[in-house]
Amino acid sequence: MEDQNFDLIGQIHTDLALEAREMVMNRAQGQEPPGVGTVTEKQGDTLITRVHIQTEEAGRAMNKIPGFYVTLEAPGLRTTDRDLHEEIAFLTAREIEGFIGRIGVKEEDTCLVIGLGNWDATPDALGPKVVSHILVTRHLKGLTPPEKKGGLRPVCALAPGVLGSTGMETGEIVMGVAQRIQPRFIVVVDALASRATGRMGGVIQIADTGIHPGSGLGNKRIGITPQTMGVPVIAIGVPTVVEATTIVHDALEELFKNHPGMLNLRAIDEKDLIRKVLSPYMGSLIVTPKEIDVMIDGLARVVSGALNIALHPAVSPEEVFRYLS
Amino acid sequence: MEDQNFDLIGQIHTDLALEAREMVMNRAQGQEPPGVGTVTEKQGDTLITRVHIQTEEAGRAMNKIPGFYVTLEAPGLRTTDRDLHEEIAFLTAREIEGFIGRIGVKEEDTCLVIGLGNWDATPDALGPKVVSHILVTRHLKGLTPPEKKGGLRPVCALAPGVLGSTGMETGEIVMGVAQRIQPRFIVVVDALASRATGRMGGVIQIADTGIHPGSGLGNKRIGITPQTMGVPVIAIGVPTVVEATTIVHDALEELFKNHPGMLNLRAIDEKDLIRKVLSPYMGSLIVTPKEIDVMIDGLARVVSGALNIALHPAVSPEEVFRYLS
Amino acid sequence: MEDQNFDLIGQIHTDLALEAREMVMNRAQGQEPPGVGTVTEKQGDTLITRVHIQTEEAGRAMNKIPGFYVTLEAPGLRTTDRDLHEEIAFLTAREIEGFIGRIGVKEEDTCLVIGLGNWDATPDALGPKVVSHILVTRHLKGLTPPEKKGGLRPVCALAPGVLGSTGMETGEIVMGVAQRIQPRFIVVVDALASRATGRMGGVIQIADTGIHPGSGLGNKRIGITPQTMGVPVIAIGVPTVVEATTIVHDALEELFKNHPGMLNLRAIDEKDLIRKVLSPYMGSLIVTPKEIDVMIDGLARVVSGALNIALHPAVSPEEVFRYLS
Amino acid sequence: MEDQNFDLIGQIHTDLALEAREMVMNRAQGQEPPGVGTVTEKQGDTLITRVHIQTEEAGRAMNKIPGFYVTLEAPGLRTTDRDLHEEIAFLTAREIEGFIGRIGVKEEDTCLVIGLGNWDATPDALGPKVVSHILVTRHLKGLTPPEKKGGLRPVCALAPGVLGSTGMETGEIVMGVAQRIQPRFIVVVDALASRATGRMGGVIQIADTGIHPGSGLGNKRIGITPQTMGVPVIAIGVPTVVEATTIVHDALEELFKNHPGMLNLRAIDEKDLIRKVLSPYMGSLIVTPKEIDVMIDGLARVVSGALNIALHPAVSPEEVFRYLS
Repeated sequence: MEDQNFDLIGQIHTDLALEAREMVMNRAQGQEPPGVGTVTEKQGDTLITRVHIQTEEAGRAMNKIPGFYVTLEAPGLRTTDRDLHEEIAFLTAREIEGFIGRIGVKEEDTCLVIGLGNWDATPDALGPKVVSHILVTRHLKGLTPPEKKGGLRPVCALAPGVLGSTGMETGEIVMGVAQRIQPRFIVVVDALASRATGRMGGVIQIADTGIHPGSGLGNKRIGITPQTMGVPVIAIGVPTVVEATTIVHDALEELFKNHPGMLNLRAIDEKDLIRKVLSPYMGSLIVTPKEIDVMIDGLARVVSGALNIALHPAVSPEEVFRYLS
Repeated sequence: MEDQNFDLIGQIHTDLALEAREMVMNRAQGQEPPGVGTVTEKQGDTLITRVHIQTEEAGRAMNKIPGFYVTLEAPGLRTTDRDLHEEIAFLTAREIEGFIGRIGVKEEDTCLVIGLGNWDATPDALGPKVVSHILVTRHLKGLTPPEKKGGLRPVCALAPGVLGSTGMETGEIVMGVAQRIQPRFIVVVDALASRATGRMGGVIQIADTGIHPGSGLGNKRIGITPQTMGVPVIAIGVPTVVEATTIVHDALEELFKNHPGMLNLRAIDEKDLIRKVLSPYMGSLIVTPKEIDVMIDGLARVVSGALNIALHPAVSPEEVFRYLS
Repeated sequence: MEDQNFDLIGQIHTDLALEAREMVMNRAQGQEPPGVGTVTEKQGDTLITRVHIQTEEAGRAMNKIPGFYVTLEAPGLRTTDRDLHEEIAFLTAREIEGFIGRIGVKEEDTCLVIGLGNWDATPDALGPKVVSHILVTRHLKGLTPPEKKGGLRPVCALAPGVLGSTGMETGEIVMGVAQRIQPRFIVVVDALASRATGRMGGVIQIADTGIHPGSGLGNKRIGITPQTMGVPVIAIGVPTVVEATTIVHDALEELFKNHPGMLNLRAIDEKDLIRKVLSPYMGSLIVTPKEIDVMIDGLARVVSGALNIALHPAVSPEEVFRYLS
Repeated sequence: MEDQNFDLIGQIHTDLALEAREMVMNRAQGQEPPGVGTVTEKQGDTLITRVHIQTEEAGRAMNKIPGFYVTLEAPGLRTTDRDLHEEIAFLTAREIEGFIGRIGVKEEDTCLVIGLGNWDATPDALGPKVVSHILVTRHLKGLTPPEKKGGLRPVCALAPGVLGSTGMETGEIVMGVAQRIQPRFIVVVDALASRATGRMGGVIQIADTGIHPGSGLGNKRIGITPQTMGVPVIAIGVPTVVEATTIVHDALEELFKNHPGMLNLRAIDEKDLIRKVLSPYMGSLIVTPKEIDVMIDGLARVVSGALNIALHPAVSPEEVFRYLS
């Protein structure tokens, strides 16, 4: 049974360390996996979970690269209340600042922000939309008198598009640009698929492991990681969809949980069932709220606001929302 | 058991007469319901089904208003092949012409085309996108010399928006405009929810019964029907989404079909299960292909092309696609 | 010579009462025309001018319908400073409240907001963009408990599109909808052409005379006026373009002002000159800033913010910008 | 006088070799400048002019880099007739093929297409829109069986955005990507400013000199040229705007042409006049047709269609317009 479940973890993909940890703990009677350290903090309605996957072995168990993963679960993200959004942006900024601090960069070090995804497909447009709100400053170098520049980090930003419309791996494009621009560190923003509708649009994940092939909404074969880029990479992800196959799987899971006697029927049925229910689209079907456009706009404002605060030390949060979002 | 199933037909909503008929026939060992006449025709890969619901009683059994419903099932709609799209547009135009012929309008009679739905929510943008491609001519009246006007029907078009952003029922707006403009007949285009992923983006339905409260993707409380408008109303609908609740229901249905012994567990579980799997969004979750934007653009071109051919007798199909789509 | 100039006023079209008044005063050695009362007020950087055209004769002299015209000239409109924008929105709201007060409507009286213009042509998209930000509430009637509704006026809103894409006069559509909805008053928002680049994007005009045929950016043959609609109409206009012909005219005007001896050459040359310089587009050429998209977005936020404050007595300005803009 | 005129050529910027040549010839009594070879060809309504600037000296005289410049003047570009558009696309493709032939590339050599400009500013959106229609194939390498790939060149494409929103020079981004991707040649598409409204939207220029700092609509300080990129660069430009300052200059030019006696007044007046007429926007003001959105969409279809035909030898023109545009 262990094996069967293990397969299922592989099969049911999640980009969130939080969910990977939950799946492992569910199998282990609620116990934290060895080699994983977790700290939680509550700020108003926002639950911040900091997961440190410390060993390769823990990473294998969780199907995640070892590193730091911080998750902010904020129900307020799903409202349209701008004040709540700003609060969550401040909390997110503080966490991003933590990652920047651990890297040990200086105020005048250049940051390259990459927004992954596809402008034309709403649930995948988060990255490009965040990039469109980023306060870019690198080109002002030399134009601005030093005393005015105080606290404005050189920041540049790019939305490189998706493989299907560029013919280039996003990873290739970013590598080329990074080699030319020589940023001190990279921030990469991506829309994720979550395991559960309850996390869709309500969670922000920050990690120092970068974006790996196969993660996020698009197809990626080259990662954007500290290894491929040669500089630190901070990845910011927000789940914006759940795959339709996950919904069907979860429904069966619930049913079998209530009726354990039926479990033996499952392996036979599930794949066939999914094929019948989801054909001819199958794996390309996603589940979103009807108001996905409103949701993505709000998320892009929060994430870009947080980045503008965290990247530019002398820009006050008030100014960020006054001029930019 | 009949009763239970009957409830389920109500519960699992479909805007397609084709699917309503199937559901009734499934309960009746494949027999056509009394008072319903059905003719099918195959044109290339396109299956045309003409369902005539002749009596009130048949309407009640199928949960549909009595009238004519024509469905074109065309797998080519889901490709990006423009030639296939044009072929399907020609077939659709021919069916629309059939409806116009049955109304008995003259070439110089005015038509008002209404595109229901929401520009900003991709799956619901079909109506407004179709309207944006319609060859409107009513305002040229008087400007064009009669000999040039030959075969150009006076056509006007409106995308009235949705209740949540106008504060007005679409039906109210259309009634007001129709009273002022006095069209001889109305064509109303809407995005529908289908019962099955297999029909999403692959089916066009034309009906002479109009759009009724509760049908289509948005919330409507006033219908756009021959009764409310006082003139004939031809409704054109294309299923662009499936509700997430339907997917879960179907998965269970499939499971129970294979294991009839478990059926007694079902009534207890289904609602609870759906709540667990789809919270906190529930009924507002929809299932779409990732490439919904491409799909909607193609569908809008086909439906508007068909309408331009059918509404303007002297405009050749070639001209329609040369200048407009 | 008087006559010649008089022709030129007709020829060089302006939608702003402020500019019409200036043109008349320029001819009259700076004197206020008889039958016109003007009051100005300075609020921070914003100059508010309230022009009352009291007689038919004064209206003829200025080529404007008699009525109240309030203009806010606010250089801050052309910045991207959100705090400045909010200040200007508050001032604009106060002026709109003045118009609503003069009408004598009650808090529970319905308002219909109409956004004229074309979503797809950026300089003409102001009206539709304002409508998209309006807090509509009319459909909540009955759903909201009375104590919660306090101060929320029933407001509905429509962007009816333009003649070329609907085949219907905007005035016809609005008349039809107004007859059905029976609003107590109408607010109509439109993009205007100004006489001078200096006013483009920097001025908001409010008037109680409605929108007349030939004014605004589009072609209109039926006005949206108290006369055609049967209820009070408050028109809000913002100049977003200058016609290219105006620029050429102004250049010659400047030249001739400096070299009065050349004036006799002018009548011969001007039309011919304009044809040579602007063909083959001629009158359809407009002058805009390169960043017209940013400008329109900012203006739409200010005007919609002002309307949301003025229409809903109990909504605080803070809330307006917190939830909506 | 010669000198004064020469200054004016510098002052009145044009991106079109055709216009630069005209300006030089106007000064030289209609004579072709030495070191310039020009061939014209008429195809239907399209006038093709092939200008070869053969020497550095000729380049200096024309303020253009030596090289080949081909211009297609096609009034049909300004219609909405799709068949005319396809004809022009075929002629343009033939010219692009000429450039590719002169480079001497093989069918399997990779091409990188770069679309300069800004999605969000309609007149500058030509480059990104062309890129969105390019048939990219480089990523199919390895997936497609060789016999199916016949005639499909590996093509990739990028719209790198503008300096103000990325903080990076377009030239830097393209250099980085080109270094990583190693294309055999680059095609770069840009919106241009023309000298005359008559050329706006009606002309396509192809050149083998690349895009130089200061050309095109945006601000560029690093060129995309054979020198900076290390591989051949084919530049395709279409004038989509005229600067407002040009319009004013032209009006004065016309006036002075008719009244040569006034010419002495000119130097004094022109700058001052422009400042008075165009403040406070000045150089950022552009002149466009009201229907700029429709114009850009049509141009993007023609240019991308031409590129898809020219880049992929085995793709027939019919297929290009069937699947892509």
